Amino acid sequence: MSIFDDELMQLKGKVLRMGAMVESAIKESVRALVERDNEIAKSVIEKDHQVNSLDVEIDEESIRLIAIRQPRARDLRFITTAMKITTDLERMGDLAVNIAERALELNEEPLLKPYIDIPKMSQISQGMTRGALDAFVKLDKKLAMEVIMRDDEVDDLKHEVLKELLFFMVQDPTTASRAMKISFVAQYLERIADHATNIAEIVIYLVAGKMIRHMTLLEE
Amino acid sequence: MSIFDDELMQLKGKVLRMGAMVESAIKESVRALVERDNEIAKSVIEKDHQVNSLDVEIDEESIRLIAIRQPRARDLRFITTAMKITTDLERMGDLAVNIAERALELNEEPLLKPYIDIPKMSQISQGMTRGALDAFVKLDKKLAMEVIMRDDEVDDLKHEVLKELLFFMVQDPTTASRAMKISFVAQYLERIADHATNIAEIVIYLVAGKMIRHMTLLEE
Repeated sequence: MSIFDDELMQLKGKVLRMGAMVESAIKESVRALVERDNEIAKSVIEKDHQVNSLDVEIDEESIRLIAIRQPRARDLRFITTAMKITTDLERMGDLAVNIAERALELNEEPLLKPYIDIPKMSQISQGMTRGALDAFVKLDKKLAMEVIMRDDEVDDLKHEVLKELLFFMVQDPTTASRAMKISFVAQYLERIADHATNIAEIVIYLVAGKMIRHMTLLEE
Repeated sequence: MSIFDDELMQLKGKVLRMGAMVESAIKESVRALVERDNEIAKSVIEKDHQVNSLDVEIDEESIRLIAIRQPRARDLRFITTAMKITTDLERMGDLAVNIAERALELNEEPLLKPYIDIPKMSQISQGMTRGALDAFVKLDKKLAMEVIMRDDEVDDLKHEVLKELLFFMVQDPTTASRAMKISFVAQYLERIADHATNIAEIVIYLVAGKMIRHMTLLEE
C-alpha cells in the first residue's frame, strides 16, 4: 500500500469517526428527551465542539492531500466528496444540539404524552446516517439508494407527529407551548434525515461519476 | 490575465449567480406568503432545479480545475471553498421551497394576521446571503464578520414570532394549524440565516488561512 493509499484510508476513518459522533449525538439527544434527562442533553451540547473540530481537521487534511499528492480522477473526487459530506455532518450535529436544547426546555414542564413516533424518527435517521457513510466508504450505490428510499418514512412519521400535536393544541390550549417545541424536534429530525439523503446522493454521484444528484432517482 | 485566472473569475461568477438565485428565492417565497399569491409560490418551487443544476455545475468545474490546473495554496483553498459554499446555498434554496410550500397551504386558509416580523426576517436573511457571497468574492473578512453579527437579529425576531403565535394558539385553538405552519416558516428563515453565517465563517477561514470556524468569533 502506498503512502497515499494509507492517507486516504485515514481520511476515510476520520469521516467515519465524525459520522459515528453525529449518530451518537442524534441518539443521545432524543434519549435526553424521552428519559427527561438534563445531564444527557447537556453532554450532547458540550460534545458538539468535537464534531466541529473534526470537520475542520478533515477539510485541512483534504486540502493538504490535494496540494501534496495532486490526485486525479477517482481519488480527487473521493477527497472532495469527503469535504462535501462533512458540511452535512456538521449541520446534523447542530440539529442534534437543537434537539437537546428543546429537551432541556421540555424537561422543565410536565410530560405532554409519552414519545412514540419521535424515537422511531430518531432510529431511522440514525440508520440513514450510518447507511450513507457506509455507502461512502464502500462506494456502494445500492446502499446509498436504500438511504434515499427511507427518507419518506421519516416524512410520514413527522406528519403523524404534527397531526397529533395539533389535536392536543386544539383540545387543550395550555399544551400549545410544549406541543410547539415537540413539533420543532420532529422538524429537526426530518432535516437530519434530509442531510443523510443529501450525503447518499453525493455518494451516488461519486460512484456513478456523473450527474445523478437532484434528479429523479427512482427511475434508475 | 492567465487562462486560469479567467477560469477562477468564471467560477466566482457562477457562485455569485447561484447566490443571487437563492436570494431571489427567499424573497419571492416570503412574498408569496405575504401577498397570498400561489403563482409566485409555484414559481419558486419550479425554479429550484436551476439552483440544483448550478450546484452540480460548480462542483464539476471545481474538480476539473483542480485536476487540470493543479492549483496550490490560496487558489486551491478558494476552489474548495466554492464547493463548500454551494452545499450551503443548495440547502438554502430547499428552505425557500419549504417556505413556498407552507405559503401554498396558508393561502388556503383565512389570514391569521398581517405578517410583520417574517418579512423582516426575510430581508435580513437576504442581506446576510448577499453579504456572505460579497465577502467571498472580495475575500473580505470584515464583511464576513458583519454577516455573523446579524445572525442574532434573526434569532431574536424568530423568538418574537413564536411568542406571538403561541399567544394566538392559547387564545383561540382554531388558529393552531395556521400558527404552526407560520412557526415553521420562521424556523426556515432562521435556518437560512444559519447557512449564511456558515458561509461567512468559511470565508473568514479562507481569508485567515487558519482555523476560526467554530470558534468564538467575537473575541477577534
